[in-house]
Amino acid sequence: MTPNNPRKEEQSLAALLAPDILDLLESEPGSVAAETEDIHPADLADVAEALPRSQIPVFLATLPAPRAAAVLEYFAEELRTQLLEEMSPEQAASLVAAMTPDDRADTLEDIDEERAEEIVDALPENTRRDTQALLAYPPDSAGGLMTTDVVSVPSTYTVEETLRRVREIARSGRREAMNTVYMLNVDDTLAGVMSLRELLAAPEGARMSDVAWPEVRKVAVTADREEVARLISEYDLVAIPVVDEKNRILGVATVDDVIDVIQEEQTEDVQKLGGMEALDEPYMQMGIWALIRKRVGWLAVLIVLQMFTTSALQQFDAQLALLPVLMLFVPLVISSGGNSGSQATSLVTRAMALKEVQLKDWWRVAIRELPTGVALGVILGAIAFARVAFSHYAFELDWNIAGEPLGYNFEEKGNEWSAVGLSVFASVAGVVLFGSLAGSMLPFVLRRLGFDPASASAPFVATLVDVSGIFIYFSVALMVLGQFMR
Amino acid sequence: MTPNNPRKEEQSLAALLAPDILDLLESEPGSVAAETEDIHPADLADVAEALPRSQIPVFLATLPAPRAAAVLEYFAEELRTQLLEEMSPEQAASLVAAMTPDDRADTLEDIDEERAEEIVDALPENTRRDTQALLAYPPDSAGGLMTTDVVSVPSTYTVEETLRRVREIARSGRREAMNTVYMLNVDDTLAGVMSLRELLAAPEGARMSDVAWPEVRKVAVTADREEVARLISEYDLVAIPVVDEKNRILGVATVDDVIDVIQEEQTEDVQKLGGMEALDEPYMQMGIWALIRKRVGWLAVLIVLQMFTTSALQQFDAQLALLPVLMLFVPLVISSGGNSGSQATSLVTRAMALKEVQLKDWWRVAIRELPTGVALGVILGAIAFARVAFSHYAFELDWNIAGEPLGYNFEEKGNEWSAVGLSVFASVAGVVLFGSLAGSMLPFVLRRLGFDPASASAPFVATLVDVSGIFIYFSVALMVLGQFMR
Repeated sequence: MTPNNPRKEEQSLAALLAPDILDLLESEPGSVAAETEDIHPADLADVAEALPRSQIPVFLATLPAPRAAAVLEYFAEELRTQLLEEMSPEQAASLVAAMTPDDRADTLEDIDEERAEEIVDALPENTRRDTQALLAYPPDSAGGLMTTDVVSVPSTYTVEETLRRVREIARSGRREAMNTVYMLNVDDTLAGVMSLRELLAAPEGARMSDVAWPEVRKVAVTADREEVARLISEYDLVAIPVVDEKNRILGVATVDDVIDVIQEEQTEDVQKLGGMEALDEPYMQMGIWALIRKRVGWLAVLIVLQMFTTSALQQFDAQLALLPVLMLFVPLVISSGGNSGSQATSLVTRAMALKEVQLKDWWRVAIRELPTGVALGVILGAIAFARVAFSHYAFELDWNIAGEPLGYNFEEKGNEWSAVGLSVFASVAGVVLFGSLAGSMLPFVLRRLGFDPASASAPFVATLVDVSGIFIYFSVALMVLGQFMR
Repeated sequence: MTPNNPRKEEQSLAALLAPDILDLLESEPGSVAAETEDIHPADLADVAEALPRSQIPVFLATLPAPRAAAVLEYFAEELRTQLLEEMSPEQAASLVAAMTPDDRADTLEDIDEERAEEIVDALPENTRRDTQALLAYPPDSAGGLMTTDVVSVPSTYTVEETLRRVREIARSGRREAMNTVYMLNVDDTLAGVMSLRELLAAPEGARMSDVAWPEVRKVAVTADREEVARLISEYDLVAIPVVDEKNRILGVATVDDVIDVIQEEQTEDVQKLGGMEALDEPYMQMGIWALIRKRVGWLAVLIVLQMFTTSALQQFDAQLALLPVLMLFVPLVISSGGNSGSQATSLVTRAMALKEVQLKDWWRVAIRELPTGVALGVILGAIAFARVAFSHYAFELDWNIAGEPLGYNFEEKGNEWSAVGLSVFASVAGVVLFGSLAGSMLPFVLRRLGFDPASASAPFVATLVDVSGIFIYFSVALMVLGQFMR
């Protein structure tokens, strides 16, 4: 939408370049690598994806392994998995070996398990051990997120020695998380940290133990990846070391992976808030059947819950026979509760996800939602009352109350609409207040019970409030109408 | 919830340290700075916030300006604004001057406008010009996000000269975004980029123009901050240069700011999806009245839209008189449409926010939602049918159809419930399909009309589907019942 949208340009760039690459692949495959050398791997992945499907492996084969691996890392997950599964385990292993350790583990996790084992077996000894260690961590843990390439030096090193070591590693072409250098004690426990830039600022002769920061932000290998994201974001870090229970460094989690985590967790939260299971893949890449399976569960639960509205309405059969016009306002009344409940739930689950609100804050939220719910209820109730008045004057609804059979007699004939209006006003106010409270408290209840508070979806809250809304509406209506009758 | 939650420790750490600091402030204020030297500014901000409100400015005054500024950057926005407004403009200026340029601009933007101008006037000449330039950019643009401290060198420099320059800047104590060095042409346009680590790996004697990457990811100063976030996240960058229309570097946007942008945008999207205006502040910090104002607008719109359900029900007055039992299933039928619509809307707005789906992809989404909606509809319809059957056998509902007045006669007496069951089945199926399609297409329609697709909130979709659901239900019911009658 913005006037200068680089995305647009790139897409057409990819589309423009693809035919050239295709020509080169036929005429002079040996020159493809040199011709595409200056293109960022992310963009080259776009170009590759624009090629005919059968030419993609041919194209990748023309690139040196490290380059092909970098490009593969930016492919859509599904395509990358397919391509690697089609190759021989040895071919796949040579590509996968050239990836950064964390991307290698992530890539292997997507691949069919048996095939992944064959690929791992074909990896060089050292890489294999590393990879197996990474694959053993749960994907949602700090261990599953980290990369094992870390730049560390003994605390006895000088700044000059450290810089020399950094240079060595950088020149070896390994693609480490190298903006930070970690200092280790003799027993390999974490002793300090220094950014590359602080290292450059430090006097060359100084000992690392004198200049490095002894207080290191770190995270346990078993910690949740959301915890990693929170620490990196709170302390504005580019990387955080991942340690075992003895404070020995196992790897490092970097900010680029954390951004992916934040996006993924947010996508999951939005999907849960929309009333479904979180999808494992992008929406457009999910198979239709997989999509249906993820969506039908909650819908089935909700329709079963919603059935209680039918039972609730049955309860008030006699009252409905007495005053059928009440029925006309049922959807209006119950949905205002559902809407205010959806608001409150969205607010509170998001505040919980951002850690702005803890479990123990439930009463602070409740005392905010109470006046908010009252004010919203009164305003919406007034609007609903106006609607009843409008119906009365514009359409001359049949307000006649067949009350006699139950012993009621309406006192002021011709003014029955105002009794219905008052009932609607009071019940909208009550339902909106109830919705705000129920919607804001449900995430706390779910968390307290050990469930994910994000499961308190908007449709779930709306359904709960619908059922109670019917009870509130008819009870209030009977009370109000009772005042008008004798 | 995780066993080793550092957040817990920190909070108690802050609470534990606060009394010590308080003692020191009384007995030996001169030693506070030295005693707290090793604490990360983010943690020290937590400690400061745990002090009695009146002691916070006293505490800040004991720290050297750069340290106090770093701590202030981590304060809650509201408290930071208050503290700076309470100080003299000169005091505030000395703190603000020590902040990074982007945080300085953000901080000043929160302060009362007149007071902010006084503070800016009290800044040193150079800093003032910089700050005024930054304040001129819209806060939601790349210009509003960037910092102006950039490390750049002429393209004629050697690697050695560049490293020397980087060292100089690092030693001067300025807090630049220094993981990347930019290379400029003589006319100050951007010629290349090199990470600090690539710089260390490069041969010292090489010219920058020979070793730096000539293709630089960059972003226009006028670009939306979401575009900045997208580029940094797509290319795994730690910083991206911000350029004017002549490709001259104006500043740099860093990954830590981008994480904040991603979180903020996501919070806004969740709030809109919940059916309200996005809040400007965290939920717990909003005043109650401000909160009500943000929430009442959409609720009022929704209740007015929802009024059409009343009108729709009025349309079917005669049918209702014919078969009052139909009424019992109205909430059940319409809410299944609302629920499936909420799912579809959440999926599509999120996919749009992640740029997985573009405006032109609407038909690809539609042909996914069509079979999905049919399958979901049939499954949910079957559940609803089972409910009707259950009502019939368990409760012996009064299914008698008072059809004669309209000329209907039910063919198989005693089997009327199955006619109602089929009506409910067919209308749930229809409403769910309609909900899935309407919910998935609405974000496209809104974007096409120039609105924010995130405004297609779950309650909005549910309300739209409610009204149409009543029409679908009664039309289908009349059709089905027509088949059973003669």
